[in-house]
Amino acid sequence: MKQSKLFGKTVKSAKKDMQFASHKLLYQGGFVRESTAGRYYFLPLGMRVRNKVIGIIREEMNKSGGQEVLTPTLHPLELWEETNRDNAAGFELMQVTDRRNSKFVLGGTAEEMMVALVRQFDLSYRDLPFNIYQFSQKFRDELRARGGLLRVREFTMKDAYSFHTNAQDFIQEYKNMEDTYVRIFKRLGLETRVVEADNGYIGGEYCHELIADSHVGESTYFVTDDGMYQKHEDVADFAREEVNPQEELKDFEIIEQPAWVKTMEDNEKHYGLPASRFLKNVVYKNRVTKEILIAVIRGDLEVNKTKLEQKLGLVGVLEEATEEDLHSIGTKPGYVHSWGHENNSNGIKVRYVGDLSLTSVKNFIGGQKEESTDSRNVNYGRDFECEQLFDIALAKEGYKTHDGKTLIQKKGIEVGNIFQLGCHYTTKMSNATFAAEDGSLTPFYMGCYGIGIGRTIATIAEIYNDDKGLVWPKEIAPFVVHLVALNLEEVEVKEQAEQVYKVLLDKGIEVLFDDRESVTAGEKFADADLIGCPYRVVVSKRTSIENLEVKERSKTEVTSIAIEDLLQVVLS
Amino acid sequence: MKQSKLFGKTVKSAKKDMQFASHKLLYQGGFVRESTAGRYYFLPLGMRVRNKVIGIIREEMNKSGGQEVLTPTLHPLELWEETNRDNAAGFELMQVTDRRNSKFVLGGTAEEMMVALVRQFDLSYRDLPFNIYQFSQKFRDELRARGGLLRVREFTMKDAYSFHTNAQDFIQEYKNMEDTYVRIFKRLGLETRVVEADNGYIGGEYCHELIADSHVGESTYFVTDDGMYQKHEDVADFAREEVNPQEELKDFEIIEQPAWVKTMEDNEKHYGLPASRFLKNVVYKNRVTKEILIAVIRGDLEVNKTKLEQKLGLVGVLEEATEEDLHSIGTKPGYVHSWGHENNSNGIKVRYVGDLSLTSVKNFIGGQKEESTDSRNVNYGRDFECEQLFDIALAKEGYKTHDGKTLIQKKGIEVGNIFQLGCHYTTKMSNATFAAEDGSLTPFYMGCYGIGIGRTIATIAEIYNDDKGLVWPKEIAPFVVHLVALNLEEVEVKEQAEQVYKVLLDKGIEVLFDDRESVTAGEKFADADLIGCPYRVVVSKRTSIENLEVKERSKTEVTSIAIEDLLQVVLS
Repeated sequence: MKQSKLFGKTVKSAKKDMQFASHKLLYQGGFVRESTAGRYYFLPLGMRVRNKVIGIIREEMNKSGGQEVLTPTLHPLELWEETNRDNAAGFELMQVTDRRNSKFVLGGTAEEMMVALVRQFDLSYRDLPFNIYQFSQKFRDELRARGGLLRVREFTMKDAYSFHTNAQDFIQEYKNMEDTYVRIFKRLGLETRVVEADNGYIGGEYCHELIADSHVGESTYFVTDDGMYQKHEDVADFAREEVNPQEELKDFEIIEQPAWVKTMEDNEKHYGLPASRFLKNVVYKNRVTKEILIAVIRGDLEVNKTKLEQKLGLVGVLEEATEEDLHSIGTKPGYVHSWGHENNSNGIKVRYVGDLSLTSVKNFIGGQKEESTDSRNVNYGRDFECEQLFDIALAKEGYKTHDGKTLIQKKGIEVGNIFQLGCHYTTKMSNATFAAEDGSLTPFYMGCYGIGIGRTIATIAEIYNDDKGLVWPKEIAPFVVHLVALNLEEVEVKEQAEQVYKVLLDKGIEVLFDDRESVTAGEKFADADLIGCPYRVVVSKRTSIENLEVKERSKTEVTSIAIEDLLQVVLS
Repeated sequence: MKQSKLFGKTVKSAKKDMQFASHKLLYQGGFVRESTAGRYYFLPLGMRVRNKVIGIIREEMNKSGGQEVLTPTLHPLELWEETNRDNAAGFELMQVTDRRNSKFVLGGTAEEMMVALVRQFDLSYRDLPFNIYQFSQKFRDELRARGGLLRVREFTMKDAYSFHTNAQDFIQEYKNMEDTYVRIFKRLGLETRVVEADNGYIGGEYCHELIADSHVGESTYFVTDDGMYQKHEDVADFAREEVNPQEELKDFEIIEQPAWVKTMEDNEKHYGLPASRFLKNVVYKNRVTKEILIAVIRGDLEVNKTKLEQKLGLVGVLEEATEEDLHSIGTKPGYVHSWGHENNSNGIKVRYVGDLSLTSVKNFIGGQKEESTDSRNVNYGRDFECEQLFDIALAKEGYKTHDGKTLIQKKGIEVGNIFQLGCHYTTKMSNATFAAEDGSLTPFYMGCYGIGIGRTIATIAEIYNDDKGLVWPKEIAPFVVHLVALNLEEVEVKEQAEQVYKVLLDKGIEVLFDDRESVTAGEKFADADLIGCPYRVVVSKRTSIENLEVKERSKTEVTSIAIEDLLQVVLS
């Protein structure tokens, strides 16, 4: 392609609100443009990368037994009502009504649509398993879109759905998809980890994220040195070691406490004891039922809201309590008790839920703070009890696993995910069954598997760049060779450039030919670096067919080679 | 691919409401399934055809200089407001509102979006022309969806938009796209005609439809024997020959007329004269302004509403008048005058618009029919006048062109279209300009070009089938070879089948291998015919590697050939 004809120009500087390298460079290089916040156009250069990424995913999915299909973009609302996801918090569905007053959802994922397709057929165990996938636009009505292609409101997703007779059969496909995903990302230049994660609004019993490490990632996860532990912070469990096992249980007391002792730091200072010796209460409100919920936890730990929601089956439903909420149960900030609050003003009982750490301490301080008093020698099970103890604490770097290994914190971008769904959808939706070997109608056992295309491209851009621009891996570069022609005012140079261009094209090599006449050499080199094709070939009055100037984008040295040798290098 | 693993089964019979061959066979063969009316799933077989069709279109578009891009599915409503298309009749836009109360349109076409993208760049005449295209989902809130993939509410369209400095430059690209489209459809097995057409809600000055002849098509058009005339009925002009040139003008009279003379047939009978000697009045109402409009035409002709709307700049706005509408201007059905009605009940004046045919007759009968009288010797220009005479008559088989050739009527399916847009969008939208050679900011001159993917597939299916099923052209067949294995209970046959399968796959041939064990030979043959792969290869206890049974889907003879010869045949 001749660059003089290319739609989408490079831009010297990024916009102020662009924080991430991928955002800046994909904008500056002319790969994407924003339409409205979180909705992007792909320009010709971006589209070439995108089509290659899709091509690789399609190839690997087919190789692994996947079968490509396509669902409509508009999903009948009834389907989402069948699974109660039409109002699911956290999902941010957009709805449309047509002229006949039929209601539709702009699909965020397609579990319901795929089940609705599969149940149109009269399937038996003989027809199972299968894995059907699609590339299609997905929509999320996110309140905030940020970071270019990393978090958007509309995106292309490769989403796959597998259907099985039972869990044993499913497990094999889950492993198959895990391997396929790792292989796909490897071909795309991304090293990924398969990290156990929270399944959020998707449902099912377990899931994993495929994470590429990056400091701009929104996924925090933990690993151990031996690689045996890889868990997202929303599911990362860890040991609650006994804090003071040697201590004797003492009698519960209400004690005087100076008025200045308010925060955890104040407590530590006043009592000369570590935060782990105190009780901490974190208050939430259920946004649907308006119920107040107090999460009680050891003072040195923090509550992970996702864990809490997941354990209580309240995904996306809890919000931090306001001062007003505290007043409604007769208390105020800094004075929340671990037990015994009034019902709230709607008459709804306060719920107390504890972290596993409550049994790791003898003789807690706190739990019943008033203006000038507090309680001490508080022991869980003897002096107070929560409705249940769960693992609801946020893991942190340095915490120990149950077998004594140290957690190491990582940050990364979730580029893919795989979910066990089991019969979560097929028992909620009618007729989502197959005829089993014994003739009984049995719900399909399912899994689903997603890769965000735009986010994957942004992640590659985030990792493959330097201070001059993008450095695309060869397999997904927009063009393999950037042929930069200088001194085009000289006829011989022009002929030489056209000749090199033709030879490369004839060999099936993708070439971006910078044939622009009114652009300086400096600008041309800057553009080549910014766009980031793997090989830059310069033709000028100082070169010849036998002596072309070649530079790999990822290296610094410039070499002079003949065109035959160039072909060898590029085609290798 | 092994058929035992294929998702999407064949079905013995179609559903009652399926009228068209393409609808029936794409359903029965397991290529598509309906979600809700007019919204389709593509199954794996259909997806393979679809991906090949898209691949061919992409290849040809790129070869012709097109550059692939992608716009978001949700278009900001403001853009459609800029061009006043947000409420355009006939377009059937669907709207969505997000959580921040931003309004979006589900794109039906993308002129506004593409202009909004292009104007983000600071372009000059040096950057022009270019042609950017995309494959993306389009939405039409059609009241009635019918005929499977032929008329749907959601579909994938390849839509291209070209930007130019001026009309001369545009014309070249228009011709380039016309040639490209004809070439694309030829590769897809479709002979198309480039037919002058009405541009409806798209705007611009002229356009053409690419039509593949088919009796189920919704496009009626006319040609002449010499191929010099190819026009859609909505723009087909024809000569209004003088009906009675020899006659003298006579004096206008009001005459008695028996009460039974009501219809045109009654008139012909009563007066013993052909319909062409009478005046006919067709009444419409403007659905926006409520204005009543009377179209006056020669009695043997009919009004083409699209022509009328187009000539008056009222696209999609006219509807047939009701009895009530007639009462509102003081008349009733069968008694409409060609002049002189009262204003309607809203006080709006009645408009009279005439067809060119009004000047082709001397001494018309009719135009002022009352209970027992009518007028005769009515002459246009002398006795009455319309606000203007236009070409608003429906062309018919046998009518003559202005140069005396005979019109031949055809029916076909519109698979593509090309539009001159000129500055229709770029003058309505702000900043849609480039810096011209003289430095002035000049609106882009545009064209746009569309191909409906699903409709193209349905058209191919409509044309390539027989009473047993589909007969896919090789280049877009879901698989090239359907390997049908019989007698799989015998180990040697199974081994032979697997061997043939492997040899074909190793050569890169796409094979659907019917390895199903619980299916009869008859069912397997029926499925192969229904699915319609170009070559059926049978392996059974009567065949061997040196002696395979091969049949082309489009032919009847079965031949026995060795596998090497098969490879030659298939790869040719």
